[in-house]
Parts: sequence; C-alpha cells; structure tokens
Amino acid sequence: MKNILILPGDGIGPEIVAEAVKVLELANDKFALDVQLSHDELGGAAYDKYGVPLADETLDRARAADAILLGAVGGPKWDTIDPALRPERGLLKIRSELGLFGNLRPALLYPQLAESSTLKPEVVSGLDILIVRELTGGIYFGQPRERLVKDGERMAYDTLPYSESEVRRIAKVGFDMAMVRNRKLCSVDKANVLASSQLWREVVEEVARDYPEVELSHMYVDNAAMQLVRAPKQFDVIVTDNMFGDILSDQASMLTGSIGMLPSASLDANNKGMYEPCHGSAPDIAGQGIANPLATILSVSMLLRYSFNEVKAADAIEQAVSQVLDQGLRTGDIMAAGCRKVSTAEMGAAVVAAL
Amino acid sequence: MKNILILPGDGIGPEIVAEAVKVLELANDKFALDVQLSHDELGGAAYDKYGVPLADETLDRARAADAILLGAVGGPKWDTIDPALRPERGLLKIRSELGLFGNLRPALLYPQLAESSTLKPEVVSGLDILIVRELTGGIYFGQPRERLVKDGERMAYDTLPYSESEVRRIAKVGFDMAMVRNRKLCSVDKANVLASSQLWREVVEEVARDYPEVELSHMYVDNAAMQLVRAPKQFDVIVTDNMFGDILSDQASMLTGSIGMLPSASLDANNKGMYEPCHGSAPDIAGQGIANPLATILSVSMLLRYSFNEVKAADAIEQAVSQVLDQGLRTGDIMAAGCRKVSTAEMGAAVVAAL
Ligand SMILES: CC(C)[C@H](C(=O)O)[C@@H](O)C(=O)O
Ligand SMILES: CC(C)[C@H](C(=O)O)[C@@H](O)C(=O)O
Repeated sequence: MKNILILPGDGIGPEIVAEAVKVLELANDKFALDVQLSHDELGGAAYDKYGVPLADETLDRARAADAILLGAVGGPKWDTIDPALRPERGLLKIRSELGLFGNLRPALLYPQLAESSTLKPEVVSGLDILIVRELTGGIYFGQPRERLVKDGERMAYDTLPYSESEVRRIAKVGFDMAMVRNRKLCSVDKANVLASSQLWREVVEEVARDYPEVELSHMYVDNAAMQLVRAPKQFDVIVTDNMFGDILSDQASMLTGSIGMLPSASLDANNKGMYEPCHGSAPDIAGQGIANPLATILSVSMLLRYSFNEVKAADAIEQAVSQVLDQGLRTGDIMAAGCRKVSTAEMGAAVVAAL
Repeated sequence: MKNILILPGDGIGPEIVAEAVKVLELANDKFALDVQLSHDELGGAAYDKYGVPLADETLDRARAADAILLGAVGGPKWDTIDPALRPERGLLKIRSELGLFGNLRPALLYPQLAESSTLKPEVVSGLDILIVRELTGGIYFGQPRERLVKDGERMAYDTLPYSESEVRRIAKVGFDMAMVRNRKLCSVDKANVLASSQLWREVVEEVARDYPEVELSHMYVDNAAMQLVRAPKQFDVIVTDNMFGDILSDQASMLTGSIGMLPSASLDANNKGMYEPCHGSAPDIAGQGIANPLATILSVSMLLRYSFNEVKAADAIEQAVSQVLDQGLRTGDIMAAGCRKVSTAEMGAAVVAAL
C-alpha cells in the first residue's frame, strides 16, 4: 500500500489536479498499483483554511506520504497579506522540510506541438533537455538574510551558500540522469565571479570521476542563457544551482512553446518526491474549465516512474497523452489550426479513454 | 580636447578595435570632435605586460580619460593562472573603481539581419529592447565572500547586498532611458524570494513617482526569462540587478541572432563611460582577420552619443553601418545567401567609406 498526498493548491490547481487524479485512479486499477490517496491544502488555499500557507498537520501528512501530487500555488488574492504567509512560502517550506533537493524539469518538445514554439522548427524539433536544479539550498534559503538601516539608508542582503555535500548530491543526480539519457552533462555556474560557483565546479569535477562514461562540460550561466536560444539541442542534461535553475528551467520550458505540457519532480535522497506541473496557477483563467491538465497528468506519470518505479504504468500514461495529441485534441493554450478545442474535463476524459 | 583611452584587450579585441579606431579618427576629423586617443592594456594582455589584469597606471589613465573604448578580455591562455589575476578580474575592477554602475545593453534586431535569429520572424522583427543592468553592486562585489571548512566539509558563500542609493541611481537610469524611448519600464527582480529584491522593488516604486509618464511593471526574473522567449517585443526598457542583468542581457542579445552587432555602455554618475561590444574575445577566431568589427564600431557611436553628446557624429556612424549592411557586406558570423563575405578589415574600410 502506497500513500499519495494530493495538494490541489490555488488557481487552476484544483481543476487540473481533478483530471490527473482520474488518470491516477484508473492506472491504480489497471496496473494494480495499490495506491491510496489523501487530500490537503497548500499555498493560498491553506492560508484560507489554516491561516498559514503550510500547516503543521499538512507537513506531517506530507512526511508520512510516499509521494505528493501538487497543482500550483499563488494568486493576486494573497498579494497583500504578510509576505511571510504568502502562498510561495508554503511551497518553499515543504521543499525544504522534506529535503526535496533534486528538482527535475524536462523541456521536451512534443512533435505534435512543434508549431507552438516561437523558435524556428529546425532549431527546436526533437528538443529533449532535462534541467536538474538544486532545490533546497543556495540563495533561496541562505542565512543571514536581513533588512536594515546602515549609514542612514535602507539596505538588504541575501546569502548564497553551498556546501560540498549539497553540491555532491545534486551533481550525482545530474550524472545519474545523464547515464540513463545521452550521457552528456553540462554544469552551469558563474565560477568567474562567485566563490560558491568555484566550489560547485570543483565538487562536480570530483563527482565526475565516478562517471567516466558521461561527457561533462561547464558553462557560465550567461552563456547558457545564450546557448539555450542559439542552439538548445546541444544540451542533454543541465545541472545547476537553485537560482540559476529557476531562471534557466523557465527559459528552457518556454522554448517548447507548450509549457502546459511540462511536468516536474522534486526528489529527496530516497526518491520520495513531490510532483507538479512546470506552469503556475494561472489565476486569470481559474474556474473556467479551460486549463490544460496534461502537465499535471504527466506529473502523475513521473510520480509512478521515479517514486514507485512503476515503469509500465508511467509509460502507458505518456502514451495516452501522446495519443490524444495525435487525435487532434487541444486545450486553448496549445490550440492550432485543424485541431479540436476541448475543455479541461474533456482533455482529462480523453486521456482516461486512451489509457 | 577630450581624451579617449583605448583598451584593445585580448583575443579578437585588437583586430576589431583597430577598425573602430579608424572610424573614430575619421569622425574626429569630419565632425571636429577634438578627440585625442591614448592606448593601454586590460585583461590577459595586461597580465602579460604588467603581471596584473589592471595595472595601477592603467587605472590612473582610465580615471583621467573622458571615455574608454574596450575590445574584449579573456582567453584559454590565462585559464590556469591564479584566479585573482585572471582577465575578468581586470574588467570587474575597472567597472568598480570607476563607479560605472549603469550598464546599457541594447538588443536591437537589424532588419537586414532578421534571418539570423533562431526565433520566428514575426516574434522578433522590429525587436528593440534596452537592458539597463546595475554593474557595480550586488553579488558581484558583495562582502563577505568566503571559502571555508565547516563541520569537516568545504563550503563557500557569496553575499548579495543592495542599498537604497544603489537601487535609486540605477532605477533613475532606467526611467530616464524609458523617457527617451517608448516610456515603458519593466523592473526585474525575485521579490518573492530575496530580501534584496524586496528593497529593490520598493525603491523602484519610489523613484517611479518622479516619472508619472513612464508605465512601470515588475516581473520575476524566471518569468522574464520566459517572456523574452515567448514575446520579446512586449519590452521597451528592462532594469535589473547585476546578476540578473548579466543573464537576461545575454539571452536578449542572442534573440537577435547577431550578437556581433551589439554595442554596450557602462556609465558613471557623470556619464563618463566605458564602451565595448556585447560579445566576448572569441579566442578561437583571434588573429584570423574574420571577426565582426561592427559591435565595436557601434560602441564608438554610443561613446560619442552618451559621453560627448555628439549626436550628429553618433547618428552618422550608425547610418554608415546600416549602409554597409544594405550593400550586402557580411562578416562570417552574419553571412547569409546572396551577400558578400568580407574580412574584419574590409568591413572596417567599408564603414569608413560610407562615413
Ligand atoms: C514560486 C517561486 C518561489 C518558485 C521558485 O522560485 O522556486 C517558482 O518560480 C518555481 O520555480 O517553482
Ligand atoms: C566576464 C564576466 C565577469 C562579465 C560579467 O559577468 O559581468 C561578462 O559576462 C559581462 O557580462 O560583461
């Protein structure tokens, strides 16, 4: 018996998660996964219910679960509350408290959606990059972080720390992923400026000794942002720190033109993980039933693959998604000439039918 | 009499600067600019000559000059020397010592080169963004910055500080630029995570009160990296911190597909400035006479415009560059079918002739 905690979150979160849960429940029956679901809140919805974006009891439930499926958090409704209680703080806290340091963000171009990209087809066709982002360290959580008055003026600062063990464990994830892909790993840093990046590069080089089959390269973050525009297909796996990973993974996902299709995983040392779509909570279209549920459905596939090692079920879900795309079904965000525009629920039902 | 210090730098620096100097000398005669040139070294070339990437006497000369024209610094030759003496340190030091906090990096798509972009023509045609990057503060120069051993393992950290006055002066540059352009300013930060970004946003809002005609927006850096791919023409002026500006300006410049065309300016509080191409020292093609000198020639135009207020001469140089493009002359980096491939010197001579 495995436990999955469902956190629908805010905005379009509940709508898209509802479809993903249907797919998960069918997969549970079909592949005898022996999975049991429980539900709770995170982000703005948690603030509304508990007064905090991540309640202690939710955190306990998350710790007890074998995996977590998350929709998305945030929205203008909570823009004016105490910054320490905003929806994002709940997301950052659950990542940190559960030690979900390994964030996998694939940027994959579906051949059926090649036209959606703003890049020329020859530049992005067949694009398949995996960004491995360090998720529980660096400037996101570094102490001290302070706001003060100095020499009569306001100032504020953040700290960007990395330790050898933090770099080593995320580097290993990068190399392990490269081993099951095309054996090319690009480590991105700013070692010509940052002390933390110099350590990063040094430790990545050390870990590389255990992976002689992987071709390792290093790239400065500014150059990586350029190369992702110039020739994104040169990359297989990219490993980088929390802040650079935040920026580059969003840039990379947008290269596909269909961010509504991209799932993500955040893993701890034992492959327990939280799974969520790459896109946000899209408050502007929430409640209209038009959001694309496929990234969340594909997050279920990642969950089964990475946390439960249920390869067959994971593959079947991916195939079902590919099939509905082949059928020409499209939500508004990926709509194209000659296709049929469907709602969130119709898309979910189509995947269930294909599965 | 105005003094310009010429720092050719490393790699292709000397070749491209030589052509830019020819253009500058002709403009000097033609527009009676009363300019006098002196020469020195920066980066690897300075290390070779003086043993340091920026010698004290060079810094004195730079302080005394009214403007500086720089080629580019760095190369594999200096990869193995003491990190504190690498070419980049000279660049960072001259920026900091001269207080060149205002870095202007235009990303402009030349209609003649529209095909060079990896983005679809409709997404980038007419692209004209100005990135205003804070250049002397933030994590590039923040103290403390340390490498140590803690709990038996190596660790390292950097500090990202910003003060009210640092943010205010760069925000003003952003608003001033927006005023002479399309009056839209987007301030990019990561205020949902960083304390320094919260101060940044607050101070930018305060400065905005003095610019009621400018439409101000705020965007998180990860979203900005996405939007630059999705719909870059939504931007007019972007103002952001040192690190985010490093990444986003490189990304934006690559959207044009012709980074060999893009100049940049780094200004102090009195519009004294250092001017250099956006591209690097390209050691792989150095000495072959094939590099594109146009970004450096356009840096001369920026120099005359921003530091000397010589608008006519600056415009004339830009027009001359546009004319050689119209003539179909192209260096290898921007070569296209139906055009004539020329060398660095031929391109320089063509601009001189057009001028
Ligand atoms: C919401 C925000 C704090 C978060 C981050 O910066 O990590 C988001 O952008 C992401 O990438 O998951
Ligand atoms: C060479 C390097 C230190 C420099 C920077 O990061 O500022 C460069 O990338 C730039 O953008 O001018």
